[in-house]
Parts: sequence; structure tokens; C-alpha cells
Amino acid sequence: MTLEELNSKYNAFITFHEINPIREGQLTGLTFGIKDIFLTKGVRTTAGSRILKDYVPSENAYVVDQILRNGGKILGKTNTHEFALGATNTSSIAGPAKNPYDPSRISGGSSGGSAVAVALDMVDVGIGSDTGGSIRIPASLCGVIGFKPTTGLIPTDGVIPFSWSMDTVGIISKSLDKLAKVFTSLLPQEKKRIIVSQVPSKLKIGTFLFGEDDGSLLLKTALVKLSSEFDVKSVNLNMLTYFGGHIRQTIAVAEASSYHREWITSQPGLYFEDTKKILMSGLNISAVDYIDAMRARRSLLEEYVKAFKEVDVIISPTTKIVAPKIDEVKGREVDFRFQLISNTELFSVVGAPSISIPVAKDENGLPIGLMISGEPFSDGKLLKIASLLFDMLVSKQVS
Amino acid sequence: MTLEELNSKYNAFITFHEINPIREGQLTGLTFGIKDIFLTKGVRTTAGSRILKDYVPSENAYVVDQILRNGGKILGKTNTHEFALGATNTSSIAGPAKNPYDPSRISGGSSGGSAVAVALDMVDVGIGSDTGGSIRIPASLCGVIGFKPTTGLIPTDGVIPFSWSMDTVGIISKSLDKLAKVFTSLLPQEKKRIIVSQVPSKLKIGTFLFGEDDGSLLLKTALVKLSSEFDVKSVNLNMLTYFGGHIRQTIAVAEASSYHREWITSQPGLYFEDTKKILMSGLNISAVDYIDAMRARRSLLEEYVKAFKEVDVIISPTTKIVAPKIDEVKGREVDFRFQLISNTELFSVVGAPSISIPVAKDENGLPIGLMISGEPFSDGKLLKIASLLFDMLVSKQVS
Repeated sequence: MTLEELNSKYNAFITFHEINPIREGQLTGLTFGIKDIFLTKGVRTTAGSRILKDYVPSENAYVVDQILRNGGKILGKTNTHEFALGATNTSSIAGPAKNPYDPSRISGGSSGGSAVAVALDMVDVGIGSDTGGSIRIPASLCGVIGFKPTTGLIPTDGVIPFSWSMDTVGIISKSLDKLAKVFTSLLPQEKKRIIVSQVPSKLKIGTFLFGEDDGSLLLKTALVKLSSEFDVKSVNLNMLTYFGGHIRQTIAVAEASSYHREWITSQPGLYFEDTKKILMSGLNISAVDYIDAMRARRSLLEEYVKAFKEVDVIISPTTKIVAPKIDEVKGREVDFRFQLISNTELFSVVGAPSISIPVAKDENGLPIGLMISGEPFSDGKLLKIASLLFDMLVSKQVS
Repeated sequence: MTLEELNSKYNAFITFHEINPIREGQLTGLTFGIKDIFLTKGVRTTAGSRILKDYVPSENAYVVDQILRNGGKILGKTNTHEFALGATNTSSIAGPAKNPYDPSRISGGSSGGSAVAVALDMVDVGIGSDTGGSIRIPASLCGVIGFKPTTGLIPTDGVIPFSWSMDTVGIISKSLDKLAKVFTSLLPQEKKRIIVSQVPSKLKIGTFLFGEDDGSLLLKTALVKLSSEFDVKSVNLNMLTYFGGHIRQTIAVAEASSYHREWITSQPGLYFEDTKKILMSGLNISAVDYIDAMRARRSLLEEYVKAFKEVDVIISPTTKIVAPKIDEVKGREVDFRFQLISNTELFSVVGAPSISIPVAKDENGLPIGLMISGEPFSDGKLLKIASLLFDMLVSKQVS
């Protein structure tokens, strides 16, 4: 099948448009799909929305420039939930991004197109953004690796904002080596030392959320395997997750409504119903609630960091559920969004690095990810540990 | 007159309570009055409010510790407008702080007590805070020097907050030498290099707001004198002042209402009418307005900094008016607040260093200050220029 034929089945790309590298570099030979909220000079950037359906930026996003300068080749702009404001990737002018394991199911979002493109080998690497789980969720549902670095490490210049205090550029791939190489290339010079890091000789792993949800049940085998090799203990993030969810909602939705204010008040009909609902609700958040949430976030971060006195990383299922049917999601996007982000959003609100690796499949062959999360700025260590666990749980199974 | 007798006439102090230095140091020999929003261990800290009238903290504010460690002696806690939420210093459990030039008039605020105590030689140095003009306004109306450093240089730990993103610790004195010495002592070690700075050989002074208001008319003589010695040119900050005012109001009032939320909703009757009005209005500010204001503040700062490509400092009258009668102000605190902060608040919202020096008096002998403001983090240079101008305009008049 040609890329176009494959795409007509899965809606991975909104726009095909090759952009060649400026010079050779560390990324030479790699192909990229760029989520359609990253500005591309001279190439339509729609954010999956009707509002920007004909928008052609005059500048590249920082990340786009950085890829081209390091030898990467861009194949086009990938599907996204409208303005990155959903976790199902069903509301998009290109139609829903479809699951590579079953095109009647969602890809997850908001960076769904990048995950699908990677899963179908249309590109080596997908670039996306994560504000509550938007990299990790589609990676989990599409059976690929999705990495959200520490917030702020990779500049968000030229990314159409969802929530300026939480938006985080992330990377999707099937290979952890490629992913780590891209991560290094995207870091500004002064931040590159973040990746120089050692894995402790005696790894301590915290587990959280292995309850009775589908995700946890699916990961049980992996957990048993890890317990025989490492010091594994359960940690309790229930309170943090509960408050983190409330705090994140308030901050993210208020900030989104601030950015969309003019459009949502003057032409609300141009939005999809679910994103409109979110943006409208954001207009009613009070400043004192927002400020309280910003203050509470600081305390939350302090508590979160405490958990890492006893463990090196915390693992949990990336999502509670496998990919639902597109028909089931239609009209219930916001409900599914809450379900899909419930495990991922804590790590967004505290700005922590978090990665989803594919380790399990249900009886229908639908994948689910194991999420590994660390302290802010422990990205190098986290990637090394992820590689260790991935080798143990996945690569060795194959051989 | 004893301190107590003097105080019964002017209400400079809310509480007299000597706190002796921990050891000798750079501030040995200097006496201090501390605005009653700075926590003092074991000493009542009321914030001028009924709500905290019996509050005895268990810790010192950073600034209090720093004074005591450097040899300074504290004589007590000075009068403040309730929770620092006003510019007239008329709403306080200790009664209005009264003008040393005419006790039927206001001192200005919110750090009114510190300015009055300095003006009456009750202390060498008054410590206060400035969120919109609260150091510079009472300094202007009471004929003393008031310095608001760059926001963030002196830690606000242990200061009851008004607006966490704008609150700035400041210093009031009759002597610029003493003031500079205290400023150095209050800086954390890593920030002390801010004061090492050169004054350019050919000083360029920008003037702003020399219109037809009383303040500007009173400063005309000073302006003529400066023009003969320096390169003086008028700069136009009209737009910046207009937008800066709106932005500052939104941010400061929303942040204040966030801090006071529990109290203002559960026991509003304990507040003075004017502060209650402000805090109630803050509960109605929307998150999108607050976020928009925070974003607009960044653009404002960029524009502000541009003005200093052509001048070293900008001078203007600190206040448009001299001290009004207390009777006139009663019931119109909010109106007078707007009038009093109209020249000072721009420099608060951009976090710039700004100092008021007393250079003029009206026909009734009521003083008004010349405000000198600089770029953020140019505090050292600003103090040297202030000293130069003070010598020229004030000290030499005396000799």
C-alpha cells in the first residue's frame, strides 16, 4: 500500500508534505511525522480544527527547525484531536485517527496521528505534545513507545498552546534508541547534560494503581517478572492523583480558554462539540480558583518528589482501558477523556518525565502500555531504566 | 516627647516591642520600625486588621532575621493599611497613620507607619512593602526617602501576602547611605553583586508626567535644575501606564482575594469597608482575565525595557497630589487609592526598581517626592543616580 492508501484507512496524517533536512546530522535517515499543532513554514498547520483549516505559518516551530538542522526528514503533519483538547482523537477535520490494531477503534490522543503513523511504520518517529497524557495515551493504545520529558526541557516555541504552563513536547517511536537520539537532538545545548545519568546498581521500583481495572490486570504478568529481578514495592499515589486531577483540570482548561477566548466567544460554532464544551466551561473558572490551583500545584510537586526517596521510578498502567470503539466514543468524548487521562495526568501537573512502553495485549490483541515515571529532571535515568525494563519484558520475549 | 506620647499623636506604631540584635554587624547602631505585615516571632503581628489582632507568629520573616543578624535593633511594628490593601493608611485597627507635617492629613500607605516613624525620627529605618506604590507613596507624602527594589531581590518569606507575584520588600529612611547599607544587608548572598554598578559619565534622564497635576507643577524647579546639568528628555509612558494600571489591578486584586478567600467569605464583617470592597471584587475576576493579564504583563515588561535604550533612569512625580485631609478620605479610600497609585503602579507591575526622594513642598509646606525608576536589576545604578540627584537638588540647598 502507498502512504496515501494507508492513510485513507487510518487518518494518520492531515497533510502530506515532505520537508527535507537542511544538512546531515544525528537524525539523518530518520523520517518524522509532526503533530499538526507545530508550526511549519509554508505548510498548512490546522491543529485539526476548522478555524485554522487554511492557516499557513510563516515560521517553523523550534522543534521542526531542530529536526531539519539535525538531518531529519519530515513527511507531513499528523492528526490531532482539535487543538490537542481531547484524549480520543475523534474530533478532527481529518476524521478520527484510527487504531492500527483495529480501525474501528480510536487511536487515543491528542497526538493520535503520530502514534498511528509510527505503529504502521509510515515514519520512524512521531512528534507530539502532552498536557495530560496526549503522548502516552495514544502510545499505549497503539502499542508503541511514547515519551513525555520533563516539562520545559524542550522549548514549545511555535507550538499552538493548549496550556502554557503544562504543554510538553514529546516523542513517539518503536525504538527506544531512536527515541533517545531524537530527545538529545531536540534539547537546547545548555540542557543536554540532563541525559548523562547512571542507573543505580540496585534498582527500586514503585508500583501504583494495580487494582482491578483492565490496565492493571493486563500488566500483572509483567509485574511478577519485575518482582523476581528488582526491589519492587507498592506506593500509594491515590491522594496525589485525586488532587492532581482537579488541579490540572482547573489550570489547563482556564489556560486553554484564555488562548481561545476570542474565537470561542465570536465563532463557537466552528468548534467540535466536545472541545467547545471544555472551552466554554473554562470561561467560567474564577481567578481565585486558578490561583489556588497554581499554589496547590507547588505543594503537590513537593509531595510527589518525596515519593522518590524510596524508589527510583514508579510504574503503573498508562491507561485503565484498551482502545474503545469509535462509535462508542462519539458524543461521549469528554467522559472517555476523563477515563483515559486518569493515570497519566498526575505526571503532567507536576511536570515529571513519564514514558509508556508496550508490554501487554488483551484477548483481542489490543495493546496497553506500562508507564514509567520519575522525578522532574531525571529524564536520562528514566530512559535508561525504561530501556532495561523494555529489554526484559519485551525484546527477550521475542528471542 | 517620649515615643509613646509622639505615637499617640501620629499612630506610627501599632505595637512597641524592642527586639535586640543577635550579634554586631553592618547595621549596628541603627533602629528599625517594621511594617506590621512582617512576621515577628513572639511579637503580635496584626496586619492592621481585626482578623489578626491577636496573632502572635512563631517565626520571624526573612527580613526580620536578617536585620537582627546584622546588628539592627527593632523598636516595634509600624502601622499599615489593613493587609496592605490601601494607599491611604486610614483603615487600620490602630487608626489612621497621620502625616508628620500635619496630623489632620493622611500619611499615605500602605507602609504609612514606617514613613511616619522615620519622618519623626522615631527610628532610623522603616521596613515596608510595595505592591503598587506602598513604599513610595507614604515616602512622598511624608517627605522621606522610600526605595522599592527590583521585585524578587529581597525574599518575601514571612510577609503576609497581598499579591504574591508583585509584593516587594522596601526601605524607608532619611539617609540614602543608611538605606543603601540596609539594602545590601537584606540581599541574599548570591544577589549582592546587584549593587556593584557604575553611573555612566554622561547621564541621560528621561522625564515623564510633567503635566498640569500638582505633583508635576511642584517638581518644575527641580526639572529646570537637572536640565542644566544633564541630558534630559521627555519620554512618553502614557500607554504603558494605562495598560499597566489595568493589568496590575487584575493581578493584584485576584491574588489578594485568593489569599483572603476563606476569611472574606466566612467573616466579611471583620474587614474595613474599603478593603472588603476590593476583596469581594476580586472573587469575581475570571481566570481568563487573570491569565490574560499575566501574559500582557510580559509584553509590558518588554516595552518598558525598551524605554531604557535612550535613558538611564526615568523621573516623574511620585504622586499627583500632596497628602489630603483624613476627613476628606474617609469613605472615599478607594478613589484616593486610585489617585495615589497612578504614577507608581507601572513600576510595580513590571517589577522595576523605583525610589522616591523628597525634593519639593507646596505653599502649605506639604512635601512631594521625585520618583526615579530604572530597568529591572539596575538597583545599584539607580541608587547611585538617586544619590547624585539628591545631593544636587536637596543637600546643596541646605549648605
